[in-house]
Amino acid sequence: MPTISAKGLSMPESPIRKLVPYSEKAKKAGTKVFHLNIGQPDIKTPEVALNAVRNFDFEILEYSHSAGFESYRTKLATYYRTHGLPVEVADILITTGGSEALLFAMGVTMDAGDEIIIPEPFYANYNGFSTASGVKVVPIISGIETGFALPPIADFEKRITSKTKAILICNPGNPTGYLYSKEELLQLAEIVKKYDLFLIADEVYREFIYDDQPHLSVLNIAGIEQNAIMIDSVSKRYSMCGARIGCIVSKNKEVMQTAMKYAQARLSPPTFAQIASEAALDTPQSYFDDVVAEYKERRDTLVEELSKIAGVQVAKPRGAFYCIAKLPVADADHFAQWLLESYSYNGATVMVAPAAGFYSTPNVGKDEVRIAYVLKKADLIQAVEILKNALEAYPGK
Amino acid sequence: MPTISAKGLSMPESPIRKLVPYSEKAKKAGTKVFHLNIGQPDIKTPEVALNAVRNFDFEILEYSHSAGFESYRTKLATYYRTHGLPVEVADILITTGGSEALLFAMGVTMDAGDEIIIPEPFYANYNGFSTASGVKVVPIISGIETGFALPPIADFEKRITSKTKAILICNPGNPTGYLYSKEELLQLAEIVKKYDLFLIADEVYREFIYDDQPHLSVLNIAGIEQNAIMIDSVSKRYSMCGARIGCIVSKNKEVMQTAMKYAQARLSPPTFAQIASEAALDTPQSYFDDVVAEYKERRDTLVEELSKIAGVQVAKPRGAFYCIAKLPVADADHFAQWLLESYSYNGATVMVAPAAGFYSTPNVGKDEVRIAYVLKKADLIQAVEILKNALEAYPGK
Repeated sequence: MPTISAKGLSMPESPIRKLVPYSEKAKKAGTKVFHLNIGQPDIKTPEVALNAVRNFDFEILEYSHSAGFESYRTKLATYYRTHGLPVEVADILITTGGSEALLFAMGVTMDAGDEIIIPEPFYANYNGFSTASGVKVVPIISGIETGFALPPIADFEKRITSKTKAILICNPGNPTGYLYSKEELLQLAEIVKKYDLFLIADEVYREFIYDDQPHLSVLNIAGIEQNAIMIDSVSKRYSMCGARIGCIVSKNKEVMQTAMKYAQARLSPPTFAQIASEAALDTPQSYFDDVVAEYKERRDTLVEELSKIAGVQVAKPRGAFYCIAKLPVADADHFAQWLLESYSYNGATVMVAPAAGFYSTPNVGKDEVRIAYVLKKADLIQAVEILKNALEAYPGK
Repeated sequence: MPTISAKGLSMPESPIRKLVPYSEKAKKAGTKVFHLNIGQPDIKTPEVALNAVRNFDFEILEYSHSAGFESYRTKLATYYRTHGLPVEVADILITTGGSEALLFAMGVTMDAGDEIIIPEPFYANYNGFSTASGVKVVPIISGIETGFALPPIADFEKRITSKTKAILICNPGNPTGYLYSKEELLQLAEIVKKYDLFLIADEVYREFIYDDQPHLSVLNIAGIEQNAIMIDSVSKRYSMCGARIGCIVSKNKEVMQTAMKYAQARLSPPTFAQIASEAALDTPQSYFDDVVAEYKERRDTLVEELSKIAGVQVAKPRGAFYCIAKLPVADADHFAQWLLESYSYNGATVMVAPAAGFYSTPNVGKDEVRIAYVLKKADLIQAVEILKNALEAYPGK
């Protein structure tokens, strides 16, 4: 028998995946399941994007340019500049989702055995991309006590070795909803300049900001033009997760030239999805105003309702559509399974994502869950009501 | 300044890419360029596939299952069984193009530093995927003298080390058009069983077969169910290169489970393209009959016309839509550039792909070019006429 690669065997599984069979079983048994576990928004995709695909006009579905349609890149550069980001066409390479942009960024900046520092909890698939790239994740814990603020810079410096090549942040953060301040980004800029590191910023939730503090891109920080790599995606911005279109953006010419070699090897990003993404740039501002107002209300509802539960601690998210909640349970993994397997309240239960899967350090975040507020307000209230009653009934406190 | 990774720096460039500026310059100067260099067919995409996308019916472009639509996988398994391949739904994982299927296959079977044996000349992007995966390509030369037949098994055995994890073939081959016989596949089966290797077969040109010899899949070889991994794609079959849909197929459960972990990390393959690909399975057989008849005529025309040129040697391809031609020139790279930069015949020239880029061994294939017969018969005749006259005029023989 031939053997699977060591890295294949150590590829992490999705932290939610093992709960799926329990969720399916609960549904089959007639229990309604409120999904607080997923990042698939219930927001409609802009009509302008969907109509562009309905009305495509060609007879041969051809490869596009490996960097994506030139027309799309041109329009996208204008979009960024309109939003205050100094981006030229040559700084953009269209990718198959933010996922591929992250894989390219890792491939361009790191060899097998190199290290990347990531504040945790972080988007669970960073582990998968790192494993696939042979890269070692060096985590730095940010805690719910500080609302998941940037860990002290001294903590970063302690972890920098000759193998360290990059720092990766998600801003605003999945799963924390944390929005980095200008001061925090300037601190990161200092350290990447001092140690010649890349600063990779996953900014796919850029538009989902709910308070007065504005979002600041790594591309807006002067002096780190050669260090900064921005990862973006249309998935959340236009509720087009199924498009699989993202991009990698950098002012560093060598980064872009090298990323282009990865892009050429896989030929091109998907054509239909680029048509949708290019057209989506014409989405009226009112769409975003409505979406952000909707999420802000959901966030406020969720945080308010969660705060009413004795023993539950929650860091109010300032962006994205997730939050981490600390629960009065010993093992959130077990609790999440129990919710689906053994509990219902008025014929319904909730599915949450145990937060341990968002930490790379073992045995951290075991009493935390990630809650996505991608449900309508009334459903959110009902879901938190179930959670409250479940916590009272749960035997594993 | 932060530094680019060693593997990023060694990522190969497309062998055609450096010719593109010369081709664009020639076109700007008014010279017609016949493209014999590309794998983008001029065949129309089946209407049934395009119409399915025109008529999609949803309001939110959601993620699909990480393994692809279940409905698509089910229908695809039936398609394979109809064509004599013993494939069940669980054996299939839908990928973003054959490219991603190859990357997953490498990630599942090999770690950084491992070795993969590939008969050369081979599809140039195998080099890119290997470099990206940190895998070392160990080439075995197959020559135009034998029509690019499988090299002697003894040559494979000589190259097998403790690091060897897989053999990769392309059948029928890009760039050679070679179609492996049952005897050759049985020889490969023996060796992968003997040394516990994976046998990865890129079979994306399966339908493009022009003579009596049928195509045989690695999935049809008894006894290597645990070794065989098949790579497929809709790009060429339905002239849907821009869809970016492929799949990885294996009976080896551990391979599929591990591939699924890679698939989950990147969330899902593109949704619109899956709609097109699923519908494409309803393409009538008459479409393929017409396409194959068209390519067969093109192949016969190309080989016949090339054979008339003194000093040109060509191995008649039995599948795909490429052939390798040996030219009476010292450096085909220089010749290809000269064709675009300094030559025209009745206001036209040709663009060919220098074959050296399809070999991993240095200084091999320097007098060979890859010719894609993706032009109509009349254009092919004109293109070869230009080539003939150019060879007479070329000063660098």
